[in-house]
Amino acid sequence: MKNNQQPSGMPIHKYVPFHEQISVELPDRTWPTKRIEKAPRWCAVDLRDGNQALIDPMTPERKRIMFELLVKMGYKEIEVGFPSASQTDFDFVRQLIDDNLIPDDVTIQVLTQAREHLIARTYESIAGAKQAIVHLYNSTSILQREVVFRTDRQGIIDIALEGARLCKKYEATIPETEVYYEYSPESYTGTELDFAAEICNQVMTVLTPTPEKKIILNLPATVEMATPNVYADSIEWMNRHLDNRENVILSLHPHNDRGTAVAAAELGYMAGADRIEGCLFGNGERTGNVDLVTLGVNLFTQGIDPQIDFGDIDQVKRTVEYCNQLPVPERSPWGGDLVFTAFSGSHQDAIKKGFEAMAARAEAQGATTDDITWGVPYLPVDPKDLGRSYEAVIRVNSQSGKGGVAYLLKSDHNIDLPRKLQIEFSNVVQAKTDSEGGEVTSDQIWNIFQDEYLPSGAQETSWGRFELISTAAYNRTDGDGTLDVVIREGSDEVSASAPGNGPIASFIDILRQRGIDVTLYDYTEHTLSASGDAEAAAYVELQVDDVRLWGVGIDGDIATASLKAIVSAVNRAIRIREQHLVVV
Amino acid sequence: MKNNQQPSGMPIHKYVPFHEQISVELPDRTWPTKRIEKAPRWCAVDLRDGNQALIDPMTPERKRIMFELLVKMGYKEIEVGFPSASQTDFDFVRQLIDDNLIPDDVTIQVLTQAREHLIARTYESIAGAKQAIVHLYNSTSILQREVVFRTDRQGIIDIALEGARLCKKYEATIPETEVYYEYSPESYTGTELDFAAEICNQVMTVLTPTPEKKIILNLPATVEMATPNVYADSIEWMNRHLDNRENVILSLHPHNDRGTAVAAAELGYMAGADRIEGCLFGNGERTGNVDLVTLGVNLFTQGIDPQIDFGDIDQVKRTVEYCNQLPVPERSPWGGDLVFTAFSGSHQDAIKKGFEAMAARAEAQGATTDDITWGVPYLPVDPKDLGRSYEAVIRVNSQSGKGGVAYLLKSDHNIDLPRKLQIEFSNVVQAKTDSEGGEVTSDQIWNIFQDEYLPSGAQETSWGRFELISTAAYNRTDGDGTLDVVIREGSDEVSASAPGNGPIASFIDILRQRGIDVTLYDYTEHTLSASGDAEAAAYVELQVDDVRLWGVGIDGDIATASLKAIVSAVNRAIRIREQHLVVV
Repeated sequence: MKNNQQPSGMPIHKYVPFHEQISVELPDRTWPTKRIEKAPRWCAVDLRDGNQALIDPMTPERKRIMFELLVKMGYKEIEVGFPSASQTDFDFVRQLIDDNLIPDDVTIQVLTQAREHLIARTYESIAGAKQAIVHLYNSTSILQREVVFRTDRQGIIDIALEGARLCKKYEATIPETEVYYEYSPESYTGTELDFAAEICNQVMTVLTPTPEKKIILNLPATVEMATPNVYADSIEWMNRHLDNRENVILSLHPHNDRGTAVAAAELGYMAGADRIEGCLFGNGERTGNVDLVTLGVNLFTQGIDPQIDFGDIDQVKRTVEYCNQLPVPERSPWGGDLVFTAFSGSHQDAIKKGFEAMAARAEAQGATTDDITWGVPYLPVDPKDLGRSYEAVIRVNSQSGKGGVAYLLKSDHNIDLPRKLQIEFSNVVQAKTDSEGGEVTSDQIWNIFQDEYLPSGAQETSWGRFELISTAAYNRTDGDGTLDVVIREGSDEVSASAPGNGPIASFIDILRQRGIDVTLYDYTEHTLSASGDAEAAAYVELQVDDVRLWGVGIDGDIATASLKAIVSAVNRAIRIREQHLVVV
Repeated sequence: MKNNQQPSGMPIHKYVPFHEQISVELPDRTWPTKRIEKAPRWCAVDLRDGNQALIDPMTPERKRIMFELLVKMGYKEIEVGFPSASQTDFDFVRQLIDDNLIPDDVTIQVLTQAREHLIARTYESIAGAKQAIVHLYNSTSILQREVVFRTDRQGIIDIALEGARLCKKYEATIPETEVYYEYSPESYTGTELDFAAEICNQVMTVLTPTPEKKIILNLPATVEMATPNVYADSIEWMNRHLDNRENVILSLHPHNDRGTAVAAAELGYMAGADRIEGCLFGNGERTGNVDLVTLGVNLFTQGIDPQIDFGDIDQVKRTVEYCNQLPVPERSPWGGDLVFTAFSGSHQDAIKKGFEAMAARAEAQGATTDDITWGVPYLPVDPKDLGRSYEAVIRVNSQSGKGGVAYLLKSDHNIDLPRKLQIEFSNVVQAKTDSEGGEVTSDQIWNIFQDEYLPSGAQETSWGRFELISTAAYNRTDGDGTLDVVIREGSDEVSASAPGNGPIASFIDILRQRGIDVTLYDYTEHTLSASGDAEAAAYVELQVDDVRLWGVGIDGDIATASLKAIVSAVNRAIRIREQHLVVV
């Protein structure tokens, strides 16, 4: 089978592979054999890196709502702004402190460049806070050294060291605040590893971290430049080459340019990092920061506590959408509107069977489904654990088969169709969806079902040739019995009677008397709920003249329900014959 | 620095880590050292896996537009439907064949379950095609075996083998079509590796591939269940354990439940796969199939030809949005609206310098910027190579600094502000954005700039105390000269004259005569375009009484532009004093 792909003509000559720009060699890497076993330290940067990338940056009110959301979810380190770069950010940090909005166990973090007037302003912004992380950065990449700073490695190191010294100087001006430090060699992914290690190690000589008061060294994929295994290799390399590693909290800050930020964070964490910075639903510059929701719920699905509460993911989503004024995409992992939906028939069928198997397993163990291990095909997590309902799980369109239709009837109306009736009815639904297109809601399915099997009231009169008006069933314990019925046939109301070993046999006999040749093939019945006065649903498969088909009846009386089901099938058969329709 | 994170209370007891479900052990893996060096075979499944996951599945017209887009971009293997499961899909496949819409070098692919009536219908759908891939699947995972099929491994193998035999049987009914085969052990990621290899190897004994006519063995992450390195390990394991590997095209089909489908595809490809199935912009069940746009452009940024044309990514995006009736998210890699934007001041500044450095480098080489290696901070690809303009790159909001503002004035109006004036003007812009919020467009910046520095017409009369009406500059080659001006001062029109070694000195003298104490600190000037009759822009930094500030003048006459700049600065100083404003 020949590969017919052709050159695209795109200007590939303009681009150099990453490995020709930066050397990351680690043949003895150990991370691919590691597994994630606990949550990292999280730092939410929605109010800084996220905010600066918004078309419409957050107002003070939206900032405060975001801050409160992050606190409520359980984030303990929150980067709240770049106060020296924006009056809005400065005012917000002051508001948090002056209005006493920061819980004692939450540490705010503020970003600053390594320049004195910005550093001075930064310390001014955090004065009075119980504790704060001052996040100092300067750009270290080959490209930025060349085109932005026009200086060599030493020039870049000098910027960082001068910044660090100024931080220590201004720290002395706010003795009431416990100041921690984070240093980022910005554009780390474009920086030679030895230089990244050197500048981090040098900064530590000024900021003098200890095991009791560590420094956060943050290695940002400011721009994601390579496959995520390369980022992980680089993190493991740095992990080995940082001086006094016991004084360091090694932090990741992946961006998503190549669509692999989540992978970079996970593999980088396996490679020895301690901490991850990101934003809810991956807001942030360009393609975004790594998504904290995806990372957190990924842990949860492995039985690892994310130490963040995702129990009401829709509320989180709504709040984030309000604060960012950007929609969370429909397919955004774990929180998007469509991530638990199954339109395909085979998926729906498997999901339905998965739910049933879980219910059976729970019952066998004398437990509830919340007590046992989750296991439903195509649903890697129980939507309920994220505060989602099952309503959205099964959705029906022209690609759907019997499973979804059956699931919706069962979950919303307690109608548990026999398997062959599922197939018959899904053909009815699919004929409508194929011709009309679009999704079919649970309500629409119920309407289609009623219209096909359960006409009632005025509709019933016009719908079929027969209608059951009243029944009287007489039965003797020796097996002989009689059924008296009043039925409407066309516009006539007639009484009829027949003996038989049960009302169904009698009723079929009555129909035969009236020229309808009926043979019973299958019959099932169930109550619609557990209470004593519940209605019952009856399903019958009949051969009516030359047509084999199903009927459905619902009634408070179990015998009447079955007779209604026969009427339903007979009327459908007549209608089909009249419409020259064929049931497959 | 204590980690204050607390248990979330989420029900982690319900979930089992992946490695306790499926064993993937490959300590001697080789893929982490591999690099991607050429494009894989692509298969676009937008019309099948993508379509079945849409709220509103494609109409025949939308299907045809999607098919034509995929063909135009360069995809040669296109899964066009599940014809036995949907009349719409069946009709579409027939339309493609009957209307002769499939180019000779494109192979359509159709999905079928391993059941006879579906297989028969599938071959009916492809009859008459020059060639087609019949994609046979059955589900193999532990979970689906237990809850859906309620059978053991042998039962699942029997389903696959019976399906394969039926395929061979029906293949004989359409001898005019060259039929290729793809087999998928569906829910592969939940399947024991030895069983996945066994069922693939068994299927090959029936379908008898050869090196000349290979079989596609497709290993879907039907549900993404683990970090992407685990998927890569599993692919490398399978790569080693498939019989007669030379007869196999090893294919990947990652879904994105954990947000790492792109990584899984890339690492899996490094691990030995040949082919990748996905959808444009990651449409597909739940969180989507792997995104073919991200994968393709990722290759491009490494100087590797994706063999797919992404040269007009906005057109691709619009078409996909029309066909899927779902928006492409703003931050979707490479194609989202915001992926090349930079709102942050430092990013904008670096981008501006990057563009300037590229222009200088090109000029030094006697080349254009299209001939040289791309290198602009924060822009991993030249937006132009994807058919995007630079307009969207720099966008200004309250987080933006001088770089973005300056870039927009330069790119849209040829205004090249001196650095100190950039700072001054960005404060003017930021004061507006901080108070009003939201993004500022290039047009709005131009309006703010004109309003601040360049009042004209009726606005000019009302705007400042001084207006230049006419000038006459007399100059002698020995350096002595005289300037005569007519100016409006308030409502009075006055003539004035002063000697000086140039018109600027003379004009400052004239202003001093009228009680305005002016000292010149800086002066630069440039033409607004290369043509001879171009206007010139002049920038002056003045001390006006106790205020230091800039003025701007634009005029066809180079001397008049500089005098206008002085008037601009003086008027601004007066206005600022009157409004008790302070320029920082």
